[in-house]
Amino acid sequence: MRHGGDIYRNKVKMDFSVNVNPLGIPDSVKRALIEAVGECSKYPDIKAEELTKSVAGMAGVSEDSLLFGNGASELFMAIVHAVKPERIVIPVPSFYGYEWTAASTGAEVVYYEMKEEHQFSLKEGIKEFLTDETDLLFLANPNNPVGNMIEASLLEEMAEHCKEKGILIVLDECFLEFTGEEGSRSFKNKLAEYPNVIVVRAFTKIFAIPGVRLGYLLCGNQELKNDIKRQLPEWNLSVFAQAAGRAACEEGEYLKETVSLVKEEREYLAGELRQAGIRVYPSRADYLLLKTGWLLYERLLDKEILIRDCSNFRGLGKDFYRIAVKAHSENELLIKTIKEMEEAKECRK
Amino acid sequence: MRHGGDIYRNKVKMDFSVNVNPLGIPDSVKRALIEAVGECSKYPDIKAEELTKSVAGMAGVSEDSLLFGNGASELFMAIVHAVKPERIVIPVPSFYGYEWTAASTGAEVVYYEMKEEHQFSLKEGIKEFLTDETDLLFLANPNNPVGNMIEASLLEEMAEHCKEKGILIVLDECFLEFTGEEGSRSFKNKLAEYPNVIVVRAFTKIFAIPGVRLGYLLCGNQELKNDIKRQLPEWNLSVFAQAAGRAACEEGEYLKETVSLVKEEREYLAGELRQAGIRVYPSRADYLLLKTGWLLYERLLDKEILIRDCSNFRGLGKDFYRIAVKAHSENELLIKTIKEMEEAKECRK
Repeated sequence: MRHGGDIYRNKVKMDFSVNVNPLGIPDSVKRALIEAVGECSKYPDIKAEELTKSVAGMAGVSEDSLLFGNGASELFMAIVHAVKPERIVIPVPSFYGYEWTAASTGAEVVYYEMKEEHQFSLKEGIKEFLTDETDLLFLANPNNPVGNMIEASLLEEMAEHCKEKGILIVLDECFLEFTGEEGSRSFKNKLAEYPNVIVVRAFTKIFAIPGVRLGYLLCGNQELKNDIKRQLPEWNLSVFAQAAGRAACEEGEYLKETVSLVKEEREYLAGELRQAGIRVYPSRADYLLLKTGWLLYERLLDKEILIRDCSNFRGLGKDFYRIAVKAHSENELLIKTIKEMEEAKECRK
Repeated sequence: MRHGGDIYRNKVKMDFSVNVNPLGIPDSVKRALIEAVGECSKYPDIKAEELTKSVAGMAGVSEDSLLFGNGASELFMAIVHAVKPERIVIPVPSFYGYEWTAASTGAEVVYYEMKEEHQFSLKEGIKEFLTDETDLLFLANPNNPVGNMIEASLLEEMAEHCKEKGILIVLDECFLEFTGEEGSRSFKNKLAEYPNVIVVRAFTKIFAIPGVRLGYLLCGNQELKNDIKRQLPEWNLSVFAQAAGRAACEEGEYLKETVSLVKEEREYLAGELRQAGIRVYPSRADYLLLKTGWLLYERLLDKEILIRDCSNFRGLGKDFYRIAVKAHSENELLIKTIKEMEEAKECRK
């Protein structure tokens, strides 16, 4: 199983495998989607003018740095189609999508292993991998499935190092808005200084709309941005994506509420799980990486609770699991279920 | 203006520039889209299992020949990313999307001109362009913006010729269902015999949902199909696309009604326009290519009626326009407007 969220081939009543915003879709976005049904006999705006204005306003970036995709995943693909890298570096464990994207290119892919003893955080050692032969580096901040952030000074050093070496950094900030530090930690305001960095974001996670497909990138290098656009189909955004995106950009309060709910619930879950004897790695995002010898995935699925088995993540292995931070009632039910299973010794092999 | 349908930057009360089904979206599809709003906090089914079954059933093809895209345009792009052609042949005039796709590759692009004296139909002469150096040929049946079909025997000869030469044919059948001859003229049943032919279809035109983005390809060559899939983002279909597609596949009656309405209205429009002194090219699709010295585009836009100015189509030039076949009341209003303008000499330069 390569992905979370496979509710189509599992019987599931609670899905902790997919890490979307526990607040659910904002009402305004739902209304916009319903209204969009009346628009879908028309072509979407090929220039996405209104959406561009909205996102530029929300993110505080210039309109001409923006390019939209049918989800972040389409943008990853378009970037490598434009850049045609011959050597790609991916720190692991991380999101499988980088590997999928890299494999489409025929490039040599080099994996830098973030170590368990460092709690899977990125260290200086990565720079040894960023040689003159390297063309592209995928980075996620915060990373997934761990949820930890890259140290700000290290990230800047890497951007500088990669600028010197002619390496493009694809910096995935899809979960940054969950941390409450988007304003201070995003690279979005450093793009003029670092034309070798592309920031990629999605509406998928933070606005809980994975079914809609909408992502964007921020790039200070117009020539590169245009090259990427040339690799995208002309009509890549549905009317639903454009309508949902526009409505979501007005949801400042929802974002604040998200940050505070996620923090509170993440701490609740981490505390309870540690108490139950499960190892929990430090996370700033809306998910937690766990390690336990229990058969957590199988026994929870028996009870129709789906979590993410991380045993097939490159750089992890058996005993690792990821759970999403959800609403309190669901988190409580998960903890209750795990504690009952533990008491009944159901989790043992 | 490269595309029709730019209702976002023009004041328009009637849009004849976009050639989608004049019946509008089937009610069942609208209902499915509204229901899908409730599903969009979930990831779409990455395997699109239900949609695959539905489309295989509707088109009468095997499930394993199918691959879905975020519109046909995404599939065109994925095909060239997989095949990496060095020489592409495109007969013109035709859909601009082939040119956009070809330009993403860096390949040499060779245009075969279909001649006005042949009413822009494909002739034997195309074979001279299909040399050993050629890797890929785009064909549309029926063609757009003309609406004419490729002679069945010529198409089969070309498929054979291209098989010998190792040329992949990307056969766009996006408008074939409007002709009423989809059953007899589609290449879908010859794909085992011609592993060098990929049929591309869309839901966009025939089900009037350009805003949703859903297309598919049919390919008898599993290895090639897998190579193409490797160039697509993993989550390329929204929950809206999957829901709309499934519902549309049940709409057999709607398709019959479409064919009879389009035939009747196309003949009505062609007759009236010819009577008004405008040249109309033979079409089997839901649009008509016109030629007239009148300033048809500008004067109709003054009256908030948008048609497709074809002057920037490669292989056409000034005086060419395309109009969609729409519902009778709209067609009548268009004809009435044109006749009034002609009487008032408004169309003269």
